[in-house]
Amino acid sequence: MRLLENLNHADWEAIGQDLHRFAADLYPICRSITGDGIRRTLAMIGDRIPLQTFEVQTGARVFDWTVPKEWNICDAYIKAPNGKRVVDFQQCNLHVMSYSVPVHATMPLGDLKPHLFTIPEHPDWIPYRTSYHKEEWGFCLSHNQMLALEEDDYEVRIDSTLENGHLTYGECYLRGHSSDEVLISCHACHPSLANDNLSGLAVATFLGQFLSGRKLRYSYRLLFIPGTIGAITWLARNRQSVGRIRHGLVLTCLGDAGGFHYKKSRRGNAEIDRAADHVLRHYSESPEILEFSPYGYDERQYCSPGFNLSVGCLMRSVWGGFPEYHTSADNLEFIRPLQLADSLRICTTIVDVLDNNRQYRNLNPCCEPQLGRRNLYPSIGGNAPGEQTHACLWVLNFSDGEHSLLDIAERSGIPFCVIREAAELLCKNGLLSPVPNDGGELTAGVPDGDRLSAFTTGFPASQS
Amino acid sequence: MRLLENLNHADWEAIGQDLHRFAADLYPICRSITGDGIRRTLAMIGDRIPLQTFEVQTGARVFDWTVPKEWNICDAYIKAPNGKRVVDFQQCNLHVMSYSVPVHATMPLGDLKPHLFTIPEHPDWIPYRTSYHKEEWGFCLSHNQMLALEEDDYEVRIDSTLENGHLTYGECYLRGHSSDEVLISCHACHPSLANDNLSGLAVATFLGQFLSGRKLRYSYRLLFIPGTIGAITWLARNRQSVGRIRHGLVLTCLGDAGGFHYKKSRRGNAEIDRAADHVLRHYSESPEILEFSPYGYDERQYCSPGFNLSVGCLMRSVWGGFPEYHTSADNLEFIRPLQLADSLRICTTIVDVLDNNRQYRNLNPCCEPQLGRRNLYPSIGGNAPGEQTHACLWVLNFSDGEHSLLDIAERSGIPFCVIREAAELLCKNGLLSPVPNDGGELTAGVPDGDRLSAFTTGFPASQS
Amino acid sequence: MRLLENLNHADWEAIGQDLHRFAADLYPICRSITGDGIRRTLAMIGDRIPLQTFEVQTGARVFDWTVPKEWNICDAYIKAPNGKRVVDFQQCNLHVMSYSVPVHATMPLGDLKPHLFTIPEHPDWIPYRTSYHKEEWGFCLSHNQMLALEEDDYEVRIDSTLENGHLTYGECYLRGHSSDEVLISCHACHPSLANDNLSGLAVATFLGQFLSGRKLRYSYRLLFIPGTIGAITWLARNRQSVGRIRHGLVLTCLGDAGGFHYKKSRRGNAEIDRAADHVLRHYSESPEILEFSPYGYDERQYCSPGFNLSVGCLMRSVWGGFPEYHTSADNLEFIRPLQLADSLRICTTIVDVLDNNRQYRNLNPCCEPQLGRRNLYPSIGGNAPGEQTHACLWVLNFSDGEHSLLDIAERSGIPFCVIREAAELLCKNGLLSPVPNDGGELTAGVPDGDRLSAFTTGFPASQS
Repeated sequence: MRLLENLNHADWEAIGQDLHRFAADLYPICRSITGDGIRRTLAMIGDRIPLQTFEVQTGARVFDWTVPKEWNICDAYIKAPNGKRVVDFQQCNLHVMSYSVPVHATMPLGDLKPHLFTIPEHPDWIPYRTSYHKEEWGFCLSHNQMLALEEDDYEVRIDSTLENGHLTYGECYLRGHSSDEVLISCHACHPSLANDNLSGLAVATFLGQFLSGRKLRYSYRLLFIPGTIGAITWLARNRQSVGRIRHGLVLTCLGDAGGFHYKKSRRGNAEIDRAADHVLRHYSESPEILEFSPYGYDERQYCSPGFNLSVGCLMRSVWGGFPEYHTSADNLEFIRPLQLADSLRICTTIVDVLDNNRQYRNLNPCCEPQLGRRNLYPSIGGNAPGEQTHACLWVLNFSDGEHSLLDIAERSGIPFCVIREAAELLCKNGLLSPVPNDGGELTAGVPDGDRLSAFTTGFPASQS
Repeated sequence: MRLLENLNHADWEAIGQDLHRFAADLYPICRSITGDGIRRTLAMIGDRIPLQTFEVQTGARVFDWTVPKEWNICDAYIKAPNGKRVVDFQQCNLHVMSYSVPVHATMPLGDLKPHLFTIPEHPDWIPYRTSYHKEEWGFCLSHNQMLALEEDDYEVRIDSTLENGHLTYGECYLRGHSSDEVLISCHACHPSLANDNLSGLAVATFLGQFLSGRKLRYSYRLLFIPGTIGAITWLARNRQSVGRIRHGLVLTCLGDAGGFHYKKSRRGNAEIDRAADHVLRHYSESPEILEFSPYGYDERQYCSPGFNLSVGCLMRSVWGGFPEYHTSADNLEFIRPLQLADSLRICTTIVDVLDNNRQYRNLNPCCEPQLGRRNLYPSIGGNAPGEQTHACLWVLNFSDGEHSLLDIAERSGIPFCVIREAAELLCKNGLLSPVPNDGGELTAGVPDGDRLSAFTTGFPASQS
Repeated sequence: MRLLENLNHADWEAIGQDLHRFAADLYPICRSITGDGIRRTLAMIGDRIPLQTFEVQTGARVFDWTVPKEWNICDAYIKAPNGKRVVDFQQCNLHVMSYSVPVHATMPLGDLKPHLFTIPEHPDWIPYRTSYHKEEWGFCLSHNQMLALEEDDYEVRIDSTLENGHLTYGECYLRGHSSDEVLISCHACHPSLANDNLSGLAVATFLGQFLSGRKLRYSYRLLFIPGTIGAITWLARNRQSVGRIRHGLVLTCLGDAGGFHYKKSRRGNAEIDRAADHVLRHYSESPEILEFSPYGYDERQYCSPGFNLSVGCLMRSVWGGFPEYHTSADNLEFIRPLQLADSLRICTTIVDVLDNNRQYRNLNPCCEPQLGRRNLYPSIGGNAPGEQTHACLWVLNFSDGEHSLLDIAERSGIPFCVIREAAELLCKNGLLSPVPNDGGELTAGVPDGDRLSAFTTGFPASQS
C-alpha cells in the first residue's frame, strides 16, 4: 500500500510502542457499560482525536431495551477473620463481577461460594464476569485463591453504587467530501482486559489520528461505546441517519499474536467484505475470512435485519477462541507493539481501498490505446512488460462503467494500490476518467500528497 | 428430530421387525405391471392405510403410451424328458420372464436356448427380465441350472394369459390443512425382489400410517403404482391437478445395508432437494447427493419437461449399482429390519421438515431483542451461550421475510428441529410471527402434541 | 467427433505432413507488420483458399493508432575489418531487429554494443526483437557470437526502407446460411518463427480448406493480419459490421509438443468458451482453460470493452511460456506434423460444435415417449440401456426451449457429437423439432453428407 510504503520497520516499531503505551495508560481503569470508568477512558481518547461525548439517561427506552442504572465502584474485598483481604479489588478490577450490587456482610464460606467464580482449568487466572441485567453480586478469583479459602466467616464488601444516572459513549466524526459515512466501532466497556478491547480502542484512536485533517472522500465516524447496549442506544438515537453508512468495521482483539480474521457482514458480499478480503489476502499471512453469524460483538446490532448495515468485524484471534479471553491473562503482556502496529496497518489499508475505490471510464474503449507513445509500454518489443503495464491494460479493459478498481484488482489478482496507481497514470494521460456521481466525489485538483492515499507522511509516531 | 427422539433403540427394532414382516408377507406374490399380483399387493397395503384402487382399461391412451393387456400367470416350467421340472415357476416367480406369452411345446435345447436368460458372473442367481412391449416368452434361471441342461428335448410350458383387462394402481390420500400436496410414489410391479421394491412399499405404507389422523399442513398422496406405465397413466389421468404437488419423493431400495443416496429433482434446488440434503447431512452417515439425470425410476416421468415437478428419489444403494439388483439375490435376507426402520426415520424427518418449513417475521427487527429478561439468554455474562440461544439469534436475524426456517438451518449449520424449536419459543415470547399465506397455514391453537412434529407418540409399533 | 471418425492415423499423418510442409514453405520469408514479406505470405495462402487482400495507406488513423510506414529490407550485416560478415541477415532474418531504420557506418564495438541484443541464458539462440513505434536500428545475435566479437571497428549496414506505403492483410470469407459470423484470426507478421505463428497460419488455412464449399450454418471469416496494428486496423475498418460476429478464435502456437490451452473470452461464459472447454475436455489430454486477461495476442483488441466480442484464443503451449518463444529455437524442428494435425482436429471439432449447437423442442414433453416401439430402447427390460439411449433421454428431457445441445452435453457429461446424433435420431422419429429462428437456420432437407458435420469426407489430404 502506498500509504504504508513510506514507513520502515523502525517506524512501525515506534508506532507499535506508542499504541501499546496508550493501551497501558487505559489498562488500570475499571470500565463497565456505564459509569466513570468509561468517562475517563473517553477523556483520554479525546486527548488524541476530536471526540464528542454523549450521555443518555437511565430508563431511556432504546428499541426493546432500557438504558440501565449507572454503576460505579470504589472498593471491594473479601476479608478473612484475621483482617487480611484475601480478594482485593484494588489489586485487580476483574475481582468484582461487573454490575455487582453493593453488599457488606459477614458470612460463612458456604454462603459465599455461590457468589464466587473461578476457572478450574487455569487455576491462576481470574475470570471476567458480568451481571448487567439481573441484580446480583459476585467475586471472580483464581481457582487457587479459592482452594486456599478455609471454612470460616468472611467479611464481604462491595462498595458500589447502582443508581439512576447515564450511559456514556463517544463519537469522533471526521467530515469528508461526501456525507456518506464509514463507521468504525469498538466497545469500551471492559475493565483491565488488554486484547479485548484496549487493542481495538487504541487502533481505532490511532486510525482517527491518521484520518484527522486529511481530505477524505467519505466521512468517518468512530464510535467508542459500551458493547451491546451502547450499540443499541446509538442505533436508536441515530435511526434516521444510518442510511448514510456505506461501510463499517467493528474492531476488537487486535493485539495478540494470532493471524487475522475478518468476519463478513450479513450481506456477505458488501464492499467492506471484499475490501477486507483483498487487503488481508495481499497484505497479511494466512488470514481467515469467516461467514457472518448473529453471535459476536456489535456487528450483531448493526447487522440486525432492521438495519442490515454493511459492517464486518476485524480481529486477530477470534474472541472466545483463545484461552486468555475474558480472563486476567488477557493482560498487557498478551498484546505486543508490533502486532498492534500491524493491525493498524491493515485497518488503514482497508480504509484506503474503501476511500479510493471507484469506477472509471476508458475514454478510448475500442481497441487498446497506443500506450507506447505515452511511455506506458516498453518500446522494444519481444519481451514481456512489467506489472505496471499489466495493471494499465487491466484498468483500461475493465473500466467499462461496470467495474470498480476493486473489481479489477480482484479479477486481475493485482494489489489494489497498483491498480489505483495505474488508474491515476491513465487519468493523467487522458485515457481514463472517473465516473461522475460514483458516491462522494473527490475534489478535482487535490494534490496527491494531501489525499488519503498518502496520509502516512504525517504519521503521528511520537504523539503520545 | 423431535418426532423421533421419543423412540429408543428397542422401539426402532420393533418397527424394523414390523416393516420386515410386512415385506415378507408381500414377497411371494408374483407382481407385474398389471394383473392379480398387484391387486393382491394393494389389498394388503389397504389393510394398513386408507387406499383407493383404480383400474384403467387395456388400450387406454396415456400420452404417447397405451395401457397394455393384462398379464396373469398360473404356472410355468421346463420339464426334462424324465418328467422332472428343471425350471419351475412354483419355486421362484423370477423364473418366468414377466409378460411372457403362453407357450406349450416340446423342443430341443438348441431351440430353447434363445429363450433362456442367466447371469454367468453369478452362476447361482436367477436374473429378472421383462418383455412388456414385445410379445415374447422366456425363462430366467441360474447359470449353473443352464449348464446342467443336457442336449435333449424339453417340454416348455408357460400357463399365462395376456388379454384385455386393466392396469391397477392404488392411492392413499391424507387430507391436510392445505390442498397443496406432498407426493410419495413407489413402484409395486416387481415380483419376488425385496429391496427393489418391497422395501419402498413397506416404508411408504408405514409412512402413511404415521401421517393418518394427524393434523397436517400439506395433504399427502401416496401412490402404489406399476413403474413407468403406472406413473405415466397416473399423470395422464391427473394432468389437471398436478399443479397442487409442491414436493415429492420416489421411494425405492430402502432396505439394504448401503448408505443413503438422494437423487435431486430436475430443478436441482427445489425445497424437497434441500430438505433431503439437510436431513441426510444431519441425520445419516456419509450420505451422497446425486444430480438429476433422466434415467432412473418414476422421477423420470414426474420430472419430464412438461411437468417438471419437484420430485426427488430416496434410496440406500442406488438401483443398478449393487450386484444383487434384479436378481434372486435381492431377497428377504438382503433387507434388514433396522435398515428399513432407519429409512422410515429419514423419510419422516424429511416430511417433518417439509411440513414445518415456513417463514416467520422478526417483530423486533431493529437490534436484538433483550433475550435475557425473557430467560432466553444466560444472565451471567462472560461465557458463551448454548445452541438454543444461538438458534434464537439465527432465527431472529434471518426472519426478515426472505428466509424460511430451512434457509436458516442451512445457513447456520444448526439442525432444522433446533431451529424450529427456537422459532416456536420466540413465537411464544411474542418476538416472532408466522408470515401469513405462506402456503397451507396451520390452524392457530393446534396443541403441539397433535401436530405432525410430534406424531411419533402414536407410532404403530405393534400394529402388524 | 463424427467428422473426424472417418480419418485414421495414416490420414492424420498425411495431413500433418502437409501442414508442416506448408509451414516450411512460409518459413524463410522475412515478414513484419508491413511490407513484401506479408504480401508474399498472403499470396501463398491465397493459393489454397479464396483470399481477398487489403492494403491500407500509411498514415491512416485507426482508433488511437496510425498505420505506420511500410518497412522492407534487402540485406543487413555486421562486417569485421577482415571483410567477413560476422552477423548476416542472409543467414537468418531474425538477425535484424524488425523495423530497423537504414544504417551504413563503421564504428568501434563500444558504439555498436547498445544496438546488439542477445540471450545470455541461451547463448546459441538468436532473439527476436522489434521497434515498430520508435525509429531505431539493431541486430539480434547469439550470445556466443557477441562474445566472439573483438574490440575493433565494424562496418554496419542495414539496407532497409521505412517509407510511406501500406499495411497489408488478407481475409477469407466463406458464406454460410446465416450472415452471423465465426471469426478466425491469426497474426502473419513474424519472420522465421515456426510455432509463433506459422503453426497458426497453417492450421487456419487448412481449416479454411475444410470449410470451403460446404453448407455452413454460420459464415466464416478468416483473418491473416499483422498482430496488434492489423487487428486494430481491421476493427476500425469493420466497426459497423462486427455485430455479426457470434463467435471467434485467435489461433497461435499450435505446433509444439505442449498440451492445449484455451484462453477464454472477456465474457468468460460465451458459447465459444463453452464449446472450446467441452471439446478440449472430451477430445484432448489434460487441457488447461485460462481466464481472460487483457494481455496476449489479438483477443486483446477483439475483447477491448468497446467491442467485447466473444473471441477466445487457442494454443498448445502459451506464448511467452516456453523458452524457445521469440528466439531462433522456435524453428521447423520445434513444430511437428502430428501436433499440427491434432490442433487442426481440435479446431474443426470446436467449429463443428458451434455450427451444430442449437435448441430443439420435445414434441412430447409430458412423460417420456415410448422409445421402445421406435426401436430406440432395448425391448428386454432388466438391464441398463446404452449411451445412445441415455443421450436420447437427456435430449428429450432438456429440450424444453431453454437448453441447447451444448447445454445438454455439458449437463449430461456426454460428448456433443453423441448428443447431436441423438437429436437427429429423435427428429427423424418425429419426437423433436428444431426451435425456429435460433440463429442461422439450416435449410431443411440438406442431405447429411453435405452438412458440415461430415465435411471430412472431402478432406484435402493431398492438396499441397
